[in-house]
Amino acid sequence: MITRIEQIVDALEPQLIEQRRDFHKYAESGWTEFRTASLIARKLHDLGFEVKLGRDVVREADRMGVPDEATLEKHYQRAREQGADPEFLPALRGGFTGVVGILRCGEGPVIGMRFDIDAVDMTESQSPEHRPVREGFASVNPEAMHSCGHDGHASIGLGVAAALVELKDQLRGTVKLVFQPAEEGVRGAKAVVGSGILDDVQYMFAAHLGSGSPTGSVAGGRGSFLATSKFDAFITGAPAHAGGKPEGGHNALLAAATAAINLYAIPRHSQGATRINVGRLQAGTGRNVIPAQAHLAIETRGYTSELEQHMYNYAVRILENAAAMHGCTLEVRAMGGAISGKSDIELADRTRRIAQRISDFTHVHPGLSGGGGSEDYTYMMARVQANGGQATFISIGADINGAGHHTAEFDFDERAMRGAVKLFVASALDIMQNR
Amino acid sequence: MITRIEQIVDALEPQLIEQRRDFHKYAESGWTEFRTASLIARKLHDLGFEVKLGRDVVREADRMGVPDEATLEKHYQRAREQGADPEFLPALRGGFTGVVGILRCGEGPVIGMRFDIDAVDMTESQSPEHRPVREGFASVNPEAMHSCGHDGHASIGLGVAAALVELKDQLRGTVKLVFQPAEEGVRGAKAVVGSGILDDVQYMFAAHLGSGSPTGSVAGGRGSFLATSKFDAFITGAPAHAGGKPEGGHNALLAAATAAINLYAIPRHSQGATRINVGRLQAGTGRNVIPAQAHLAIETRGYTSELEQHMYNYAVRILENAAAMHGCTLEVRAMGGAISGKSDIELADRTRRIAQRISDFTHVHPGLSGGGGSEDYTYMMARVQANGGQATFISIGADINGAGHHTAEFDFDERAMRGAVKLFVASALDIMQNR
Amino acid sequence: MITRIEQIVDALEPQLIEQRRDFHKYAESGWTEFRTASLIARKLHDLGFEVKLGRDVVREADRMGVPDEATLEKHYQRAREQGADPEFLPALRGGFTGVVGILRCGEGPVIGMRFDIDAVDMTESQSPEHRPVREGFASVNPEAMHSCGHDGHASIGLGVAAALVELKDQLRGTVKLVFQPAEEGVRGAKAVVGSGILDDVQYMFAAHLGSGSPTGSVAGGRGSFLATSKFDAFITGAPAHAGGKPEGGHNALLAAATAAINLYAIPRHSQGATRINVGRLQAGTGRNVIPAQAHLAIETRGYTSELEQHMYNYAVRILENAAAMHGCTLEVRAMGGAISGKSDIELADRTRRIAQRISDFTHVHPGLSGGGGSEDYTYMMARVQANGGQATFISIGADINGAGHHTAEFDFDERAMRGAVKLFVASALDIMQNR
Amino acid sequence: MITRIEQIVDALEPQLIEQRRDFHKYAESGWTEFRTASLIARKLHDLGFEVKLGRDVVREADRMGVPDEATLEKHYQRAREQGADPEFLPALRGGFTGVVGILRCGEGPVIGMRFDIDAVDMTESQSPEHRPVREGFASVNPEAMHSCGHDGHASIGLGVAAALVELKDQLRGTVKLVFQPAEEGVRGAKAVVGSGILDDVQYMFAAHLGSGSPTGSVAGGRGSFLATSKFDAFITGAPAHAGGKPEGGHNALLAAATAAINLYAIPRHSQGATRINVGRLQAGTGRNVIPAQAHLAIETRGYTSELEQHMYNYAVRILENAAAMHGCTLEVRAMGGAISGKSDIELADRTRRIAQRISDFTHVHPGLSGGGGSEDYTYMMARVQANGGQATFISIGADINGAGHHTAEFDFDERAMRGAVKLFVASALDIMQNR
Repeated sequence: MITRIEQIVDALEPQLIEQRRDFHKYAESGWTEFRTASLIARKLHDLGFEVKLGRDVVREADRMGVPDEATLEKHYQRAREQGADPEFLPALRGGFTGVVGILRCGEGPVIGMRFDIDAVDMTESQSPEHRPVREGFASVNPEAMHSCGHDGHASIGLGVAAALVELKDQLRGTVKLVFQPAEEGVRGAKAVVGSGILDDVQYMFAAHLGSGSPTGSVAGGRGSFLATSKFDAFITGAPAHAGGKPEGGHNALLAAATAAINLYAIPRHSQGATRINVGRLQAGTGRNVIPAQAHLAIETRGYTSELEQHMYNYAVRILENAAAMHGCTLEVRAMGGAISGKSDIELADRTRRIAQRISDFTHVHPGLSGGGGSEDYTYMMARVQANGGQATFISIGADINGAGHHTAEFDFDERAMRGAVKLFVASALDIMQNR
Repeated sequence: MITRIEQIVDALEPQLIEQRRDFHKYAESGWTEFRTASLIARKLHDLGFEVKLGRDVVREADRMGVPDEATLEKHYQRAREQGADPEFLPALRGGFTGVVGILRCGEGPVIGMRFDIDAVDMTESQSPEHRPVREGFASVNPEAMHSCGHDGHASIGLGVAAALVELKDQLRGTVKLVFQPAEEGVRGAKAVVGSGILDDVQYMFAAHLGSGSPTGSVAGGRGSFLATSKFDAFITGAPAHAGGKPEGGHNALLAAATAAINLYAIPRHSQGATRINVGRLQAGTGRNVIPAQAHLAIETRGYTSELEQHMYNYAVRILENAAAMHGCTLEVRAMGGAISGKSDIELADRTRRIAQRISDFTHVHPGLSGGGGSEDYTYMMARVQANGGQATFISIGADINGAGHHTAEFDFDERAMRGAVKLFVASALDIMQNR
Repeated sequence: MITRIEQIVDALEPQLIEQRRDFHKYAESGWTEFRTASLIARKLHDLGFEVKLGRDVVREADRMGVPDEATLEKHYQRAREQGADPEFLPALRGGFTGVVGILRCGEGPVIGMRFDIDAVDMTESQSPEHRPVREGFASVNPEAMHSCGHDGHASIGLGVAAALVELKDQLRGTVKLVFQPAEEGVRGAKAVVGSGILDDVQYMFAAHLGSGSPTGSVAGGRGSFLATSKFDAFITGAPAHAGGKPEGGHNALLAAATAAINLYAIPRHSQGATRINVGRLQAGTGRNVIPAQAHLAIETRGYTSELEQHMYNYAVRILENAAAMHGCTLEVRAMGGAISGKSDIELADRTRRIAQRISDFTHVHPGLSGGGGSEDYTYMMARVQANGGQATFISIGADINGAGHHTAEFDFDERAMRGAVKLFVASALDIMQNR
Repeated sequence: MITRIEQIVDALEPQLIEQRRDFHKYAESGWTEFRTASLIARKLHDLGFEVKLGRDVVREADRMGVPDEATLEKHYQRAREQGADPEFLPALRGGFTGVVGILRCGEGPVIGMRFDIDAVDMTESQSPEHRPVREGFASVNPEAMHSCGHDGHASIGLGVAAALVELKDQLRGTVKLVFQPAEEGVRGAKAVVGSGILDDVQYMFAAHLGSGSPTGSVAGGRGSFLATSKFDAFITGAPAHAGGKPEGGHNALLAAATAAINLYAIPRHSQGATRINVGRLQAGTGRNVIPAQAHLAIETRGYTSELEQHMYNYAVRILENAAAMHGCTLEVRAMGGAISGKSDIELADRTRRIAQRISDFTHVHPGLSGGGGSEDYTYMMARVQANGGQATFISIGADINGAGHHTAEFDFDERAMRGAVKLFVASALDIMQNR
């Protein structure tokens, strides 16, 4: 069986690369993946998948960090000009850029697989040293670049779809391929889970390319993710002339500065690691005006969701009181978030054993790989685990050309995609056949 | 008439000095003037005055900055040992140390005169250079010293009483000599006013010795006083072991530090001078304990009562929110206060013209003297002015021996008391006879 | 003589309005007044004035708050397209946008007159209610609007030039008409003074239109100006991943917040009014990055230059230590400044008496008008006064259409310009003839 | 051999209890253990030990947190009155309250054992519920109480001395019994190590009673100790009258508040746990005086000494700049400190195996017991380990009567001392005989 899978997937490799480069060239940031998602829907539909998309797989109330209407619309129009699929595009309008392809093959387990599809809010390098420039697939969209490998993830997902269709006679049960928007900033997964699309899933998989390991290495499960909240605080006071009537204003900058220092001063916690950062503070307008507006971009983290919530609640209390202290009001907007989470050891082990039989993998990590960082896939893990299922998060090694993730010269070894597709497909078959 | 007054008062001078030195030696701080007040009551009674004291002239609810029960009782017992008058003492117990002597002489205006009687909370110098040491009348009470001249004020008040009795045949109307406790820290006047004892007063006088002018100089009225609030803030959190469970506490020190910086950062005011000070901050106990208690001693000031209240209200808002920010609670206690105030120009001018006829005064200030500083006599001025009367605050020059007011080596030229007595007496007669 | 002046100036009125509207339409902000200054130079030259401009009247080292090279060049090119005078334009390149016209008429006093010519950094209202829109002279340049009346000042200056030429036979001495760039933000006068162009001036005049008084009113001198410093603080730290290595950064945002609170907490001053404002604070980039950069836009003010310098020095000390506290470095850039200053009473009175004879003025303010606000004309006053000369700052009343100064709907009554021209001209003649 | 040790020690039990209660009754805080140390020296001498004490075993330059001269002398006199040994007392004067007893028995290993002897700065409960009260050995010294069991440690040390003497014929090598002052606040061990007395020690032991385990339990070694610095910061500014001349002072309270908030805001560290606390802040005097003095009692901690030093250095940088920001000066005084440390697994295991053969121990912890907290014994461990030796820190279980360590009702089960003595003695013999 592995042999047949290997043959099928090896034959798909040119297509994997072509797709990845197409997504890379037309990179789209979170909630604006109009072109990307519409083309994925087209492909899934043409392969025979049942396709759900838009509001059917993205619950509006659970979206976080959505750009304003004007930005959404501008990028919607851009997608149209850049070759989006006209049939599926309209359902995505307004930032409902998730797609789920469902393949039902009779009785059997329900298996979910998550592929995130969004780019990072940064402009790609124009250096001729940079392979995407040299080979003509660097991003043509300013402030949008696939510097985290999600172009690869999306292409892997389509590769899995294509391979599964060829193996359809072997399948017993249902596969749901979930193409998730807005993973950057941990903004999208909660809304996908909120749609209920994963409620019947019993086995859940996701993977990430790179992460410091070379092509050919793999780990069956990640040990832990930090819980996190990303949120913006808006403090509103009142302006006044700083020379003529300094007492007349309500100083939002002073409130924000008081908040910022006290946020960093939230006490350490004896139960585990916590983090807080005020990544950005912008306040005031003219030099001679008492500042009436302040905006803080904040994130809290914790080794567990409890620790993270402790940080978050303390932070909001500080913000409220710092604002009130200077006669200002506060608005807090959730911009992203993820809970803590761990791969199920049983499913991670099973995945590891399958990986050992795939020729692409020359180094299979023996246990759960190290933790750190945050991922909103944890919402999906938690939903499946809460329903009695199992979930894992696979690390696929990939050589990195140029600089690391989230840098303007990021690029990865495209050969790594092949092994990833094989592992997803082989895992699905293993579960269906040996449940 | 002035001639007769001068003769009477000149004869009283040895007694003025003796009384002043007796009060100086047994100095008593605000609300503990048990010995001082009881002896004043004795003297007034023996001179034929109607004497009101204790709760009749001090409204309990309006007292500010009263020491705790144990301190009051300890000093009450000390007063007994130091020769307090046994008949009048009991009425003062518990810190009701005001005395009012009333002399009724038929129909005529009601004239009030305020003499403050309390010492400062500081220990007198023991240097042999210091005249009170050399001549044996330095304070025997630790942490209590007449370094602001109120010993002289009290003695002047008794001199006025003695002189008025000798001039009784000339008097038409009523004189109320008000011996006020706890002027230091502006704590006592509001409670005296609250008793209603000044409600029928039509002309109100008070004076201060010294104030930077030499013996022989005088000003008929002070231009302005800053309004002020003196208050203590107590922040209560919860302790925790700083190493073992730092997240377990509610950090009162952190709340107090946040409050302190923001208090100083209250904006300047375009309508006039304002002031704020955190004179003392004490927080925490053990080095390895999250601090659960903090205490701040604060004062606000303003050129007008409106400006001062703006500062006070802003300060309390800061304190409330700084406490709440760190899960702490706040208690604010009023410790003293004075409103802004101005002498009536008409009464100040009248006093100035009378002073010009008294031989002790060689330099009579032509107008209202400069402002600055705070005095709770302003409550008395405001009450009389609100009832349609007039009030003034006289500055009596006095050479200062040693260092300035509120220093451990303060002493003043006792000859200045004579002129002050004459001016009070002559003013009363002038009003009664030429109303 | 006044009659002749009135006739000449009344005839100039259509030209005053036309010029003002031309400057208004092509509004240029401080240091980019390329078109405005070149046309002024052209006109002065054509009238027979000796013209100095560019680096001859603007000392490079004393300029403050100059835009970057790219901005200067962009607006230089814009000026070319909008009809700048090609002969005089090149001398202004790089932001040397001052012009001085000199008229020498034999022996006699040297008289200086300052006219500021720059617009405010704001976009003009497009409302049809707004007269400049309705009558077609609203600013065509975004982020540049004459909302402070300097278009009127520039036109008045040209009117004075034209009138003086007609009166040339009456003149004895020298007149220097100084067209100053960058008064907004108090950035330009110091550099004009630095050029030495005013070193021989014995009588110095300037005027401001509006200021809360109606058309027809005038005051011969302003009582006082607050000294001020405008400066930017740049704090540079080091970035780090806020989740993965929070200890690795140097947090510029934390330093800036600490600075901001402490800046507001600089103590009040007993010697007079002081002010401080942090008008703008911008720090950090990504939410999950320890902020490595912070920028604060600050101003300090004081009733005297000494008070202002006390504030400024304290502020810089706070900034230096707040940066160092968190391992960051600080750069402070002067962006503008003015010293305190007062009109000479003698010259203000003389101007007032002349105004009483001009028919346009129906209400002449009896003394110096009230203070408040800052003006960099104070550098010019100080230079002339230091050389033994006299200086005054005249307030010319003008009805305001729409909203007040520095709002997007500001407009003023153009009839007020006529009286202003008359007063400048009549004052010059009075000094020359009756010195 | 164990049997003989058990017999000897069981017979010593009444003496162990008597000694412990004597030390408990006359509790002495760190650096003032004059009576305690002198009686220990007496006993060691009488048992035949070579006794070193005072400056021979306490290096002056390495002492931390020593009380002032007056306090030392007052407690020295108190010790004399409370039965200190007159022969050994003088050598301790001035706070050199360490004692080392040396027993040399020919060739063989050098074994060190540390017993800390100081009380905690707190007043013992007077409740009749409290056994020391009921049985008459509660502390008679105010602000000094053995609430951490060091009375037991001292008595155990004397028990070890007595037992070793009885076993002298079995000994091969040297034993050094180190009675250390001032372990509370981690102030004393560094000075003992600094004297060089441990430079030849090859095996080092110490133990603590209690720590949450019941009587009968024991662990052969503690896994880790947090490094810590205890230090005081003194900020000195200048006073001024807060109403009359607020600009005249240098506000030490404002500097201290700025420091305090920023100290808590030192970023978390990715390499392990860190801690910081400002346990006490005292600033200012009078309400109307700009505060000229501030005192902060601070501690930093870290999982490793490197982490702790990172915290300490950052903290000092904050303090220096907060002081300089407001024109104040800073003095930092070291008040205590400990490095991080770990028991040698080999020696801990060896101790554990010996414990398994002692009848008092019914539960022997299998490995290193958990970490947390700080101990300055780490300086001794580090010295011995640096010289190639081994060190361990033994946890001896003991039931706690009343409340926990460092509470006013602390008391421990005295039977636990017996097992501790046996374990020290048996370990020494094991090393000497089976090295």
